[in-house]
Amino acid sequence: MKTDVVIRGHIVWCDTPKHIQTVPHGYLVCENGLCRGVFEELPERYENLPLKDYGGRLVLPALYDMHLHAPQYAYRGLGMDLELIDWLKAYAFPEEAKYADLEYAGRAYAAFADALRRSFTARFCCFATLHAPATLLLAELLEASGLQGYVGKLSMDRNAPRDLCELSADRAAEDCEHWIVEMQARFTHIKPMVTPRFVPSCTDALMGKLQGLMEKYGVPAQSHLSETRDEIAWVKKLCPDCRHYAGAYDRFGMLENAVMAHVVYPEDEEIELLKARGTMAAHCPSSNANLRSGIAPVRRLMSAGVRMGLGSDVAGGESIDMLRIVTNAVQFSKLYWRIVEPNEPVLSFPEVFHMATKGGGSFFGKCGSFEDGYMLDALVLDDRPLRTVVDLTVPQRLERALYLSGELRLVQKYVDGQPVLQEPAP
Amino acid sequence: MKTDVVIRGHIVWCDTPKHIQTVPHGYLVCENGLCRGVFEELPERYENLPLKDYGGRLVLPALYDMHLHAPQYAYRGLGMDLELIDWLKAYAFPEEAKYADLEYAGRAYAAFADALRRSFTARFCCFATLHAPATLLLAELLEASGLQGYVGKLSMDRNAPRDLCELSADRAAEDCEHWIVEMQARFTHIKPMVTPRFVPSCTDALMGKLQGLMEKYGVPAQSHLSETRDEIAWVKKLCPDCRHYAGAYDRFGMLENAVMAHVVYPEDEEIELLKARGTMAAHCPSSNANLRSGIAPVRRLMSAGVRMGLGSDVAGGESIDMLRIVTNAVQFSKLYWRIVEPNEPVLSFPEVFHMATKGGGSFFGKCGSFEDGYMLDALVLDDRPLRTVVDLTVPQRLERALYLSGELRLVQKYVDGQPVLQEPAP
Repeated sequence: MKTDVVIRGHIVWCDTPKHIQTVPHGYLVCENGLCRGVFEELPERYENLPLKDYGGRLVLPALYDMHLHAPQYAYRGLGMDLELIDWLKAYAFPEEAKYADLEYAGRAYAAFADALRRSFTARFCCFATLHAPATLLLAELLEASGLQGYVGKLSMDRNAPRDLCELSADRAAEDCEHWIVEMQARFTHIKPMVTPRFVPSCTDALMGKLQGLMEKYGVPAQSHLSETRDEIAWVKKLCPDCRHYAGAYDRFGMLENAVMAHVVYPEDEEIELLKARGTMAAHCPSSNANLRSGIAPVRRLMSAGVRMGLGSDVAGGESIDMLRIVTNAVQFSKLYWRIVEPNEPVLSFPEVFHMATKGGGSFFGKCGSFEDGYMLDALVLDDRPLRTVVDLTVPQRLERALYLSGELRLVQKYVDGQPVLQEPAP
Repeated sequence: MKTDVVIRGHIVWCDTPKHIQTVPHGYLVCENGLCRGVFEELPERYENLPLKDYGGRLVLPALYDMHLHAPQYAYRGLGMDLELIDWLKAYAFPEEAKYADLEYAGRAYAAFADALRRSFTARFCCFATLHAPATLLLAELLEASGLQGYVGKLSMDRNAPRDLCELSADRAAEDCEHWIVEMQARFTHIKPMVTPRFVPSCTDALMGKLQGLMEKYGVPAQSHLSETRDEIAWVKKLCPDCRHYAGAYDRFGMLENAVMAHVVYPEDEEIELLKARGTMAAHCPSSNANLRSGIAPVRRLMSAGVRMGLGSDVAGGESIDMLRIVTNAVQFSKLYWRIVEPNEPVLSFPEVFHMATKGGGSFFGKCGSFEDGYMLDALVLDDRPLRTVVDLTVPQRLERALYLSGELRLVQKYVDGQPVLQEPAP
């Protein structure tokens, strides 16, 4: 049974990357879990739906985190003086090994799922570890949180520490298949995703089998693509027959129905391929700065027609706060324009807000907008703690709320029409 | 009457930029408002001082915001799609003009002073507007807040909108002198600073008179230096006889006992001059990104021996959260290293933490460390809201607290030995 609700407040969203749309004191209608549009006056036909009046609060699409690592949440904000490969060895791998212990995984994932529930994120694509039992536990906690999205049991059968290396491609694929079957049987809102960590972690034999699982179970894929120059050089050595990094995934059909994180150093031919395959690139600006990877050429990717979403990449990124990551993406695109490529215009605030809502949202269906027929994923934000003596328009309040997200109060989050937070008495 | 207090907690600070020092469950002794050092066991001679036991909380030096604009606080996080000069015209100038109205100034500055009191900042160098009455009101509010620092009535007698342009150099200098005299008569902890907005805003006649006021009243100076390339070109046109931008201040003795904000594009000769004059450069990474100015060559400035502090530059920077600005400085230095100058090592976390504490602090006297003889400026942070299942060392907790400052609880802030926040019952 899906919800009927009319949400009243200052409604703000992006149909297109060109500008922010607003209806101050508007009505956002949700019928049977689907948006029916935003109205200045409530149409008569919706007058019988229950009304939630949020007064002067901001109502905007919830955000989509297209790339994050659940087991890295426990050490977010640490080891920031290291580069990718050293950081993986010092932090990521030792921590991920602990998830063989279900009791530890339960404590860590409970904290993660609770934090994600209270965040600005509605749906997500998230990496777990290679442990199927812990990953099922994560899915269970996330299903209970009211959020929706994809979880990936990692696949790694080479170039990994011994306790994080699957023993053979056959065994790894078998484990992955059992896990997919159990995920699909047990959960409605949390779905499995084939998740080779990245090309260096998976033999061709395993990649081939994962491709088979994608086809057999209709499951999408997620991985990392071109995060650092060292990594790209490593892939070139491992896959001498591939024209480029993206090609190493494309051999196994892993660019279709897929999210590829980072894409910091794409070649022109790779960009064409990503576009042709409809791959979604997950831009992770904070992580790319923290791990010294660089700044992705987002304008070039967008102009070429590559599908784009935004990701926190916790814990390469320090925070799951997707509002802050929107503003980081804008800031870093300004530095890119200033320092690297003055011919590529900076990303505007509406462009990045669109990327984080309707852009990433398209991976989950009709998500990320308040247009007719979209699933209702929405945030209700109280920006009164950001005191000011200046009169602000609704778009100005949105911009300020994103730049100062740490000072906001999240009043409610709707996912697929359902409220996921307990609201305090008004 | 100065305070005696012993503060117990996990004590963490930086004597040098090389590393973080910690004494877990240590005792920080403050006698007559001055630090007497940090001890693992409380020495007998201090046993009679009152003890504040903060248990497992973090105790660190409070931070110094070496550059911010009080009248811009009201519109922080807005207009971020504009560059410096356009943003000044669209936001800064129209807003600053409102401070001719004391009633408006009172409301806006009350919100600013309250926010600064509740922030991680202990001392600051802050710009006001050119209105002496409003600037005195600001100083009054800041004096009452328990914080300490400098406030500057702006000087502008050219290249400003008509309602923000002082009528003559004589009149401007006279107003500034009256204001300095009243500041020095009325306030103990908030002091006046000579504040030409930047070279393009002040005639040589006014600059000369301001130099006289600095000498007559023993007052330091603050201004902007080399924030953008357009600005530098403008200064070269306005001052054809100066070898460089810094030279245009140096003619009037304004590099000695002075804070210069930004320094994004310094020439080698300018760096030598800043070093020779002992000028403090205030690095403002967030602002330099937001206004598309670029990334300052901090490593080069530091290696040359230029004194460095950190600034929020609100509202070019969106937030007065100096912990976040420490991590922004680290992030941006990584991008600088990756994209601009691979021969300049990235700034380490301890280096930037040192810059934000003992670095900037040196402008106010012996401030920013817990060494014997330093004034006691300290923060007590509760990092329990940053839940984790991982056991963390105290330096790791510090790093995480800075990266995730929005999730912390500030328990107490000591300025010059005095607590400035009301603590809730434990």
